[in-house]
Amino acid sequence: MSKKPEILTRKQVARTRIFGVEEIHLRFANGEERVFERLMASRHGAVMIIPMQDEDTVLLIREYAAGVDRYELALPKGLIEPDESPLQAANREMMEEVGCGANRLTALKSLSLAPGYLSHTMHVVLAEDLYEKRLPGDEPEPIEVVPWRLSELDALLAREDCTEARTVAALYMVREHLRQRAK
Amino acid sequence: MSKKPEILTRKQVARTRIFGVEEIHLRFANGEERVFERLMASRHGAVMIIPMQDEDTVLLIREYAAGVDRYELALPKGLIEPDESPLQAANREMMEEVGCGANRLTALKSLSLAPGYLSHTMHVVLAEDLYEKRLPGDEPEPIEVVPWRLSELDALLAREDCTEARTVAALYMVREHLRQRAK
Repeated sequence: MSKKPEILTRKQVARTRIFGVEEIHLRFANGEERVFERLMASRHGAVMIIPMQDEDTVLLIREYAAGVDRYELALPKGLIEPDESPLQAANREMMEEVGCGANRLTALKSLSLAPGYLSHTMHVVLAEDLYEKRLPGDEPEPIEVVPWRLSELDALLAREDCTEARTVAALYMVREHLRQRAK
Repeated sequence: MSKKPEILTRKQVARTRIFGVEEIHLRFANGEERVFERLMASRHGAVMIIPMQDEDTVLLIREYAAGVDRYELALPKGLIEPDESPLQAANREMMEEVGCGANRLTALKSLSLAPGYLSHTMHVVLAEDLYEKRLPGDEPEPIEVVPWRLSELDALLAREDCTEARTVAALYMVREHLRQRAK
C-alpha cells in the first residue's frame, strides 16, 4: 500500500453561499508534486435514508433537481445538523421529506460521492417499522412520495429519471441486505 | 408529473481552475421562487469503465483520492475529450489507467452524481475481451491495478477504502447484467 502524499499547503480559492473550493499542494511518496482542487462538504456529513414500507416496498421521492434541470426519483437525504447523530438526522429528514418516522434505524455503509475532488460522505441508513409523522421542510413545492418494489428494481433503473449513483448503490445494497437477513 | 420550474436568471458566481459555480433563480409551477447554486461539469461528460478480465473478475484501481485524503479502490474513469464518443473515451482512459484496451464495449447506463446541485453525468461502460495496451497518463504515481471477483462483492463493500457510490452502483449493475446474460 502506498504512503499517502504529504499536503504541503492548503488554500481556499473560492467561497460561495454553499460551496467552498480548496487548492491543495501535494507531494507524493515518489517526490512528484501536484496542485489539486477539491470541494469541501459540510463538516457534519450527510445521510441518505432507505424507508421500507414493508419487506419489499421502498419509498422514493420525486423532486426537482437543479443540477441536471429535471425531476428525479431518488431516496430522501439531507445534511446532518451540528447537534444530531446520523440516525437522528435520518429520522428528521424522513419526517420532512416523506412524512414518516421509523422505530428501527440501521446504518448500512458510508458512501463517498467523487472522492477524487469532493470531500462529501454520506451515511446510508435503512429505516423500518415506519409511523406517520410529518415535520415542515423547506421545499418549494410538495414532494411526491413514490412507493417502489425492490423486486422491480430493474424496471426502476431502466427509467431515465432514476440516475443518482448513491440511490442506485443504496437500493442494491438494501436488496442484498434484506435477502441475506431473510436466509 | 410536475411542470418544471422556470429558470428566471443564471449567473456564474465562482470560477476556479476546475470548478464553475452557477447561481440560478427559479420559479416553481406553484409560484414559489428560490435561488439555488449548482456546480457545472465538463460539457462533454465523463465515463466510468468496468474492465472485465473474465466473466467474474473486474479490474479495479487503487489511487490517492484528494477529496477524502486517502487511497481508494474504485473503477477507472475520466472526462470525455471534445472529439471523442463515450466508448472511445472509455477505451482511452482504460489504456491510461489500467494498461489495456477492449474489443467489446457496451454502454450500460448513465449515472448522475448529486443531481440536486451538480450537473455531472457519467456513462457507465462495460469493457470485455481485453488486450494489453498502455497509453501514458498524467498520474503522479503508478496506479495499482487490483483484480476482484464479482462473486466476492460483499467482501469488497465491507472494506473502508471502497466507498465511491458510482463504483458501488456500477459493480452491482454489471453483476446483474452478466447474470441476466448468462441465463
